[in-house]
Amino acid sequence: MPNNSYVIDGLQYCRWSDKIFAQMAEGKLDAVHVTIAYWETCREALERIGQWQRLFQRFEPRIMQVRTGDDVRMAHASGRTGVVFGFQNCSPIEDDIDLVQIFHELGVRFMQLSYNNQSLLATGCYETEDPGITRFGRQVIKEMNRVGMVIDMSHSAERSTLEAIEISSRPISITHANPASWEPALRNKSDTVLRALGESGGMLGFSVYPFHLQGKSACTLAEFCQMIESAAELMGIDNIGMGTDMVQDQPVSVVEWMRNGRWTKDMDYGEGSADDAAWPEPVSWLADSRGFPTLRGGLVQHGFNAEEVDKIMGGNWLRFYDASFIPA
Amino acid sequence: MPNNSYVIDGLQYCRWSDKIFAQMAEGKLDAVHVTIAYWETCREALERIGQWQRLFQRFEPRIMQVRTGDDVRMAHASGRTGVVFGFQNCSPIEDDIDLVQIFHELGVRFMQLSYNNQSLLATGCYETEDPGITRFGRQVIKEMNRVGMVIDMSHSAERSTLEAIEISSRPISITHANPASWEPALRNKSDTVLRALGESGGMLGFSVYPFHLQGKSACTLAEFCQMIESAAELMGIDNIGMGTDMVQDQPVSVVEWMRNGRWTKDMDYGEGSADDAAWPEPVSWLADSRGFPTLRGGLVQHGFNAEEVDKIMGGNWLRFYDASFIPA
Repeated sequence: MPNNSYVIDGLQYCRWSDKIFAQMAEGKLDAVHVTIAYWETCREALERIGQWQRLFQRFEPRIMQVRTGDDVRMAHASGRTGVVFGFQNCSPIEDDIDLVQIFHELGVRFMQLSYNNQSLLATGCYETEDPGITRFGRQVIKEMNRVGMVIDMSHSAERSTLEAIEISSRPISITHANPASWEPALRNKSDTVLRALGESGGMLGFSVYPFHLQGKSACTLAEFCQMIESAAELMGIDNIGMGTDMVQDQPVSVVEWMRNGRWTKDMDYGEGSADDAAWPEPVSWLADSRGFPTLRGGLVQHGFNAEEVDKIMGGNWLRFYDASFIPA
Repeated sequence: MPNNSYVIDGLQYCRWSDKIFAQMAEGKLDAVHVTIAYWETCREALERIGQWQRLFQRFEPRIMQVRTGDDVRMAHASGRTGVVFGFQNCSPIEDDIDLVQIFHELGVRFMQLSYNNQSLLATGCYETEDPGITRFGRQVIKEMNRVGMVIDMSHSAERSTLEAIEISSRPISITHANPASWEPALRNKSDTVLRALGESGGMLGFSVYPFHLQGKSACTLAEFCQMIESAAELMGIDNIGMGTDMVQDQPVSVVEWMRNGRWTKDMDYGEGSADDAAWPEPVSWLADSRGFPTLRGGLVQHGFNAEEVDKIMGGNWLRFYDASFIPA
C-alpha cells in the first residue's frame, strides 16, 4: 500500500480493548469515527469522553485522538489509529445550544440530529411522521456550521434529512447507511436523499451491519462492491466512503440500550424482532478491522481503479475531515 | 360565599412572596396550579420543588401542598391556599419515562407534553409543522395515565392536542388558554380542539394573560364573561374553569427564559415583539388574586346561575382533581 493511501472507517461502536486496537493496526486503519452517545445526557457523554482519554493514555502507542484531518496524517505516519468522537443523537447537548461549541472543543466532530425517534432537532427514521427540522434544530445547524461539527443524518427520517442538507451551509454526512434501492431497510436511504447528499458535497459511509445488507449476513463482498458501484454512479465517486457500523464484543444489554434508551417501558426491538433480539452475525469478509485489506482487494477485483479505491477506502473522508472539522 | 364554593386557579407563575400569599387569602383562593418548570432539567425541577418545600415551611399558615382533591378541601377548611405542582414542558423528565412516577410521588400533577417548540413527546404551538404524538410520547401518555399525572396541552399544537385527547385513556386538560374563535392567538385553541376536549371530559382553564384576550389588556370583564358563555355552549358547563396564567412581580429575565430557554442564540419574542418585549399590562379586574370575587360578581352579573358560577370558579377543577390525581 502506498504511503498516501488512507483507510478511514466512518463508524464503529465496539467494546474497545487491546485486542480490537491490535486488529485495527493489522488492518492498517488510519482513523475511525467512534460513538460517544446514543441517549446519553451531557454529563454521561462527558463520562464517555473521559473514558476515551484514559484509553488514549493507556494505549498511547496504538491510538490517538483526531481533531483535524492533519491528525489523521499524523496517526498514519506513526502507525496508529486516529479516533474521531461523534454522537449518534443530540441527547448530549440536551436543550442547550451552547453545548455545541463546548463539545466541539472536546473533540466531538459528528452529531446526528436524531436517533430513530423524534428529537428536539429532527425526526428519526422509526417515527411514522416526519415534520422536518424544528425551530431549535435550525438554530443548532447554524451553530454546528459555525464551529465545525458535522451534521450526521444516519438514523434520521427522509424529510428531516433533505431539510438538513438544504439548511446547512456546509456539506453534511450520512456516516453509516446504504441505498434503500438496494436493501429497503428503514435505516437505508432513498435515491432522492443520496442524490441531494452527493450534489451538496456530502458524504455517505457504507455500512456492513447485516440489517442494512441485501441478504443480511450472507451478503458477499462482490455483491457489496456492486452496490458501491451503483451508489458511485448516483452520488459521484468523491462522495462515498466506508462507515461499517461495526460492533464487536458488546453484550446484548448495549443493543437494548441503543433501541430502548430510557424512553419506553415496553421492549423495542429496532431492526430486530422478539425472535431475533440479539446482535446479528457479521459478514465473514469484514468481521473486524483486519478485513479492510480484504475489502480493498474486493474493490480492485470489482474493477475500481487505484485512485477510486483510495477515495472509497479513506481519501474522501480525509478530504471531508479537512474541510469540515474547523470553524467556517 | 357558601362553604362549598371553591375557587381554583388553573395556572399562575408569580414570583411568590408573603404579599402574593396574602392577596390569595384575601381573594379566598382555595387552590392554585403553579409552574415548576418551562425548560428546566430534572435536577433543576427538583431544585424548584425544594424551594416550594421551603415556602410551605415558612408560610405554613397560608399555603399547603395539594396532592389530591381532598387536600383542596383541607386548605379551604383551614383558610389556606393549596398549591398544585405542574410542569409547562416535559423537560424535567428528560429522556427517562421512569421520572414520570418519581415526579408524581413528589406531587407533580400536571405536565404539558410540549412548550411552544417540538419536544420529545409532542409539538409546540410555534412550530410550523405538527406531526402529532411521538413514539416516546405514546409511552409517556400511558405512564401518566397509570400514575395519575394530568396531560396539559396549553402550549401544544393542534394535531398533537387532538391526538393526546384520543390516545389518553383519561381526560386531559388545557389549563390556560381561550378559544381562538374569540381571539386568534397561536396559543388559543380551535373549536375543534375545544369540542373534542369537552366531549372527552377534559377541562379548559380561561386565561387572562392579555395576549390571549380580545382587546388585550383593555378587555373588559363583561366581554370576558361573554366569551365564557360561548365556550360553555361549545364544551359544556362542566368542562370549564379558570386558568388565569397570572404573573406578578417577575423580572423581564423570566419572560426571556420562558421564550428562549437555552435553545437559541437569537432572541425569540414569543407572543411579544422587539418593540413589545416585556410583560403585558394585566387586566384591571384580575390583576392579582384579590380579583376573584370581582370575577365571581361578573359571572353573576352576566347571568350565570349560582351552580354554574360555582362550577366555573372552582367546582369543575375540584371534581377533575378528584378523578385525575390518583392512579387509574
